[in-house]
Amino acid sequence: MQTATRQNRQIRLAARPQGMTDASTWNLTQETAPVAGPGQVLVQVLYLSLDPAMRGWINEGESYMPPVAVGEVMRALAVGRVLQSQHADFAEGDYVSGLLGAQEYALSDGKGLFKVDPRLAPLPRYLGAFGMPGLTAYFGLNVVGELKDGETVLVSGAAGAVGAIVGQLAKARGCRVIGIAGGADKCAYLTQELGFDAAIDYKSQHVAQELARLCPQGVDVFFDNVGGDILDAALTRLAVGARIVICGAISQYNNQQPVRGPANYLSLLVKRATMKGMVVGDYYPRAMEGLQALAGLAQQGKLKAREHIVQGLEQFPQAFNMLFTGENQGKLVLQLSE
Amino acid sequence: MQTATRQNRQIRLAARPQGMTDASTWNLTQETAPVAGPGQVLVQVLYLSLDPAMRGWINEGESYMPPVAVGEVMRALAVGRVLQSQHADFAEGDYVSGLLGAQEYALSDGKGLFKVDPRLAPLPRYLGAFGMPGLTAYFGLNVVGELKDGETVLVSGAAGAVGAIVGQLAKARGCRVIGIAGGADKCAYLTQELGFDAAIDYKSQHVAQELARLCPQGVDVFFDNVGGDILDAALTRLAVGARIVICGAISQYNNQQPVRGPANYLSLLVKRATMKGMVVGDYYPRAMEGLQALAGLAQQGKLKAREHIVQGLEQFPQAFNMLFTGENQGKLVLQLSE
Repeated sequence: MQTATRQNRQIRLAARPQGMTDASTWNLTQETAPVAGPGQVLVQVLYLSLDPAMRGWINEGESYMPPVAVGEVMRALAVGRVLQSQHADFAEGDYVSGLLGAQEYALSDGKGLFKVDPRLAPLPRYLGAFGMPGLTAYFGLNVVGELKDGETVLVSGAAGAVGAIVGQLAKARGCRVIGIAGGADKCAYLTQELGFDAAIDYKSQHVAQELARLCPQGVDVFFDNVGGDILDAALTRLAVGARIVICGAISQYNNQQPVRGPANYLSLLVKRATMKGMVVGDYYPRAMEGLQALAGLAQQGKLKAREHIVQGLEQFPQAFNMLFTGENQGKLVLQLSE
Repeated sequence: MQTATRQNRQIRLAARPQGMTDASTWNLTQETAPVAGPGQVLVQVLYLSLDPAMRGWINEGESYMPPVAVGEVMRALAVGRVLQSQHADFAEGDYVSGLLGAQEYALSDGKGLFKVDPRLAPLPRYLGAFGMPGLTAYFGLNVVGELKDGETVLVSGAAGAVGAIVGQLAKARGCRVIGIAGGADKCAYLTQELGFDAAIDYKSQHVAQELARLCPQGVDVFFDNVGGDILDAALTRLAVGARIVICGAISQYNNQQPVRGPANYLSLLVKRATMKGMVVGDYYPRAMEGLQALAGLAQQGKLKAREHIVQGLEQFPQAFNMLFTGENQGKLVLQLSE
């Protein structure tokens, strides 16, 4: 293979979006692929993860990570195969995951790069149930949410990459689990495929009324990926001592007005409840614990996952917006190469 | 004394208010004072506590206590003297505190009634630093807020009955303490009398800008009595792992629109912070621990308190609104009798 002529197509941030991203947000650029130097590996990216949090990474201003700069390759989690290695921990042919970026070839110094095994699970699953979303669900529910066996758990974005796992982890602990999702198909998936006790279709049902009906004793843990009206509805149904895990607020990420604060937040006082934010990266030092629990559950047939795979780097702009329109069914992944 | 002719003047809820209470909210009524029966005590109320939480008690709807019914004597904490006792735990002449109601004479079965000692502190202080507000500050800061020595503490409503104690408790633990209050007088009181490190006058200063200047490393514990804009400003200055104690939201209690939710609540996520509601009654079983700590601090001269005393039950309607206009200087108390 002539490495000198290998071309690397990349998705770069063209301009900070106002509201939803569109074609003008991104540039598809091309440059000569790099070559691994001492201590480096060159990875061919096979699958790119598309996650709601990425919308936050392209806003200006302080967050838990610096924003992606205009002109930079878009930050993205990915799974790929090592093509060249001058790093002691990685060999050519290894499969790896990490923040490789929205590009076909990525250089890495090995930091934050993890080996994954394609014989144990299909590669895209390492971007979903056995990756960042799985760990988010596991640590969010157990550590941040302090889940106890048998509690009542509510999860929003329940058919999404994180929500679907949250529900199954809670079911495995004997909890009653209610999911909120958009559309009858997603709701049927939750109750018929994943074993949720009930699902609320926020597009056709009145969430607060359904919660009152389904959770007469209140909600002990609310795992929120959505924010906005759904968070406000959940705040009306807290049990005393409830914990709300603020994992995300996908309803607010494309706002052009200021974020809608939860008007019912004084329920926290009335119910002596806790609302706590999380960033999954804080738990990466304990990742092994989470991955073992997830793998164990999967072996028992208690952890189902599905990936929604879109083909081709050039589809990045359209595919990215599927996260916010709710078109994806399962963990959204862009496949760059076989 | 002719107990048969003793008259009991009472403040009763006349109508549920929209927004601020006014004369039409209350009725001053009079009836023959009751007589203690078996197991009962009759208390002459000497000092009535006026607390922001009382505004919530007269709203319709679910809260941590049932609402005061229209026509009922207004619920209120008070200190009084036992006039008659047919209860083994109380003797005539004992001084007691409890939820005696906005009235001159109250019957009690002894539940929730505590003896207080007028030789150890002036009676009104048992409604302030050595009463509900003091316990709110102590348990809110230490248990709910999980305060650690040396942290940076921000408190809103800092010159109020709870806020002033929060600041002094935090100072005693070696913390840097910033108070938010309304007006130069209150701010001077915080820094010159109570030893706060800094004070922000929300009426004349830009709170978020002052916080950025005063807390460049962020706030570890924010004890919030106020809500609204001040809560939103504080959310912009959280340190990683910050705890927000939601003790109240005095800025929102007289709203005729829905409560203003904190638009910056996603800072909880970015900063892995916690927002937790509290109701002081949950900690009454541990009251002795808090009272001993408060008394110990007072003995060392590290706990200053002041009461703002208004004379006469008939002043209840006007005095009550002082809580929301900020006119009171210190714990607001209505004196009914010498």
